[in-house]
Amino acid sequence: MLKINDTDAVRFLDGAPDYEAADAALATLLKGDGAGNDFLGWVRLPFDYDKEEYSRIKLCAERIRKDADALIVIGIGGSYLGARAVVEFLCSPRHNEDPKGSPRIYFTGNGIDGADIAQILRLVEGKSVYLNVISKSGTTLEPAVAFRVFKDYVERTYGKEEARKRIVCTTDARRGALKSLADKEGYECFVVPDNVGGRYSVLTAVGLLPIAAAGIDIDALMKGAADMADICSKPGKDNPAVVYAATRQALYRKLGKKTEILSCPSESWRFVSEWWKQLYGESEGKQGLGIFPASCVYTADLHSMGQYIQDGERTLMETFLTCAEPAEDITVPDSAENADGLNYLTGRSLKSIYACAKEGVKQAHVSGKVPCMEIEIARPDAENLGGLLYFFEAACGISGYMEGVNPFDQPGVEEYKRNMFKLLGRP
Amino acid sequence: MLKINDTDAVRFLDGAPDYEAADAALATLLKGDGAGNDFLGWVRLPFDYDKEEYSRIKLCAERIRKDADALIVIGIGGSYLGARAVVEFLCSPRHNEDPKGSPRIYFTGNGIDGADIAQILRLVEGKSVYLNVISKSGTTLEPAVAFRVFKDYVERTYGKEEARKRIVCTTDARRGALKSLADKEGYECFVVPDNVGGRYSVLTAVGLLPIAAAGIDIDALMKGAADMADICSKPGKDNPAVVYAATRQALYRKLGKKTEILSCPSESWRFVSEWWKQLYGESEGKQGLGIFPASCVYTADLHSMGQYIQDGERTLMETFLTCAEPAEDITVPDSAENADGLNYLTGRSLKSIYACAKEGVKQAHVSGKVPCMEIEIARPDAENLGGLLYFFEAACGISGYMEGVNPFDQPGVEEYKRNMFKLLGRP
Repeated sequence: MLKINDTDAVRFLDGAPDYEAADAALATLLKGDGAGNDFLGWVRLPFDYDKEEYSRIKLCAERIRKDADALIVIGIGGSYLGARAVVEFLCSPRHNEDPKGSPRIYFTGNGIDGADIAQILRLVEGKSVYLNVISKSGTTLEPAVAFRVFKDYVERTYGKEEARKRIVCTTDARRGALKSLADKEGYECFVVPDNVGGRYSVLTAVGLLPIAAAGIDIDALMKGAADMADICSKPGKDNPAVVYAATRQALYRKLGKKTEILSCPSESWRFVSEWWKQLYGESEGKQGLGIFPASCVYTADLHSMGQYIQDGERTLMETFLTCAEPAEDITVPDSAENADGLNYLTGRSLKSIYACAKEGVKQAHVSGKVPCMEIEIARPDAENLGGLLYFFEAACGISGYMEGVNPFDQPGVEEYKRNMFKLLGRP
Repeated sequence: MLKINDTDAVRFLDGAPDYEAADAALATLLKGDGAGNDFLGWVRLPFDYDKEEYSRIKLCAERIRKDADALIVIGIGGSYLGARAVVEFLCSPRHNEDPKGSPRIYFTGNGIDGADIAQILRLVEGKSVYLNVISKSGTTLEPAVAFRVFKDYVERTYGKEEARKRIVCTTDARRGALKSLADKEGYECFVVPDNVGGRYSVLTAVGLLPIAAAGIDIDALMKGAADMADICSKPGKDNPAVVYAATRQALYRKLGKKTEILSCPSESWRFVSEWWKQLYGESEGKQGLGIFPASCVYTADLHSMGQYIQDGERTLMETFLTCAEPAEDITVPDSAENADGLNYLTGRSLKSIYACAKEGVKQAHVSGKVPCMEIEIARPDAENLGGLLYFFEAACGISGYMEGVNPFDQPGVEEYKRNMFKLLGRP
């Protein structure tokens, strides 16, 4: 289901990575007695979720799919990246051009960008629009401003009464500005759990509602996560999360490899990498520590960042994401003239050509002294993606504990907010 | 037109950056007697370009705009990133959903991804399709494979004769596989100049044809570049390229700031950053040296990479890109209930709110010991973007010479290709 290969990383180390320390970190995670242990809801989430709410998510998504041409998803950070990653990976980065009978999905409220909001207003004009606003507090600046605009739009377009059916909130279970408003207006609500931080929330209603509305099989996503949660609950080298965490920490601490590049095989992975960057950057980047998360989309970026990776500062490690079977494939057509000299590839699948490219790149980067790991999933489907997401979450918890930090807080994001609100003159 | 502010970077240095060394590097660039001096065609490009070809680019773009619903642009690396950056920045990342009377633009041949090609074939079915294939040699694997597929498609769809009018090649002026094929078939050809490397080629036909076909004013783009070329030809602190190059080299060499984060104010900048990453990564990442180029899209990534930037490893510098006037703006609507507590912002433009956010972030990151620079353009239009692109090219040449490398070669990208072709069994 998911395979990890760290041979080309371990060969750079003097001795094996510290699997025992990884096992100990895993035990802390599972016992729930480490730092940040009030945010461990994600660990058992694939099993211990609210089944009644889960059914409502499916019903609500079905209603949106039947009735909506466009779903506007308002959220930032963890209330944005998970859903976008899954939708772009399993539908496509061109989903809105190629929606295949599903609603178009517009992610907004994730910046302070009038042009973005104005464009979406133009694009949905005359279409049947639903909103999903995702905010635990309801007072986060970016989604709150976007919600004001789009709430106003649907109320003007459909009238107050009908608008109430078209606005769905994912927010705190009991308190907060958005919850109060939703109760007053009678919006359907889903829950951002107290014990799951934003960057670990993709498998809660935060991610699941927009994902289901896009037509993705969330049962399969959850099954993949549950199966992976079983695998990731066992100590030792059969647990890929233990391997990944132990190896990257060894490369970081012993060899000073301070930047990890996650290399993906196509554009559809771009936001999986963005989600991964938040997960790892926000979990580990504290107290002056942490592996800097960066990403490449191959083979495009071999013609861009490839030179640096091969020959630049030797502070890099690289993790290749691959997929054994692509979603769709084509073969190289024959060419009578063979002007490009590629007839030796005629009839070959792009999948098999990519496999050679990836292997060639890995060998080259290893020879350039970049330790490389590889994580392979079987197919780009919901089940395998659910497994991959859970794997990365589990490995991140382990890796953060190995680093000696609380992987579940984000104290550093407050300072800019304080400055900003002061400059904005907040009363 | 373009302002650079390095106050919040220089304050971390013990003394001023070495502007004299930057001036000397600039002089080497302008005299053309440094390493890689056979690739300096970009320096005078905004003045010394082929005017006859430039007119043909405009005519060809006009023909495509009149006749095509979709332009498929086949190219990788420097034959891809520049045009995509400009189109996404000046049209929008949602250009194909919101083409405003221009053809849809599909960038492909930049990976080995059957799903991408299959999807584009589906999306253009029944549409009027043109191809622009961009490859100096015509034998680069990724674009060559895509060209086989799409050439086949247009020939089957329109017949050989009509297909010849719909295929436009940007390639070597005289030799190479694509040039030979184009001459044989009678395809219209534009030139990838010998003395301009891929990553510096956005203002040649490589970038200009797809950019013009998207409806962008290439005269304005070139004018902005020409004005900036004048500014960037003078030594001293009035030259923003001297300031940028000198400051980032000082941060790198004296303070060990090994990663530079380019922070942009919205999603439309994403591929400007990708273009920048290629330009700097490929120019400077060699001989075990080079600043690692990374990017963030704000404010989204404050809720993702923000924690790391504030509190992680202190090896970062940051460069903020900003735009004094956004393309479109909206104001915060009033809310009778004020559930989100944001009525103190009612009537304020998002532009002014973003300015406070950016300032707050900069202060926070500076207090977290991240040296920050800021590069501001006046408006997100073709003229200002042309200036920005030239500025980054000039600064990159200067910075690379200051680093002591040849900023115009890319010897490290050969190794993976050798491995790959061996694995593919190339005869």
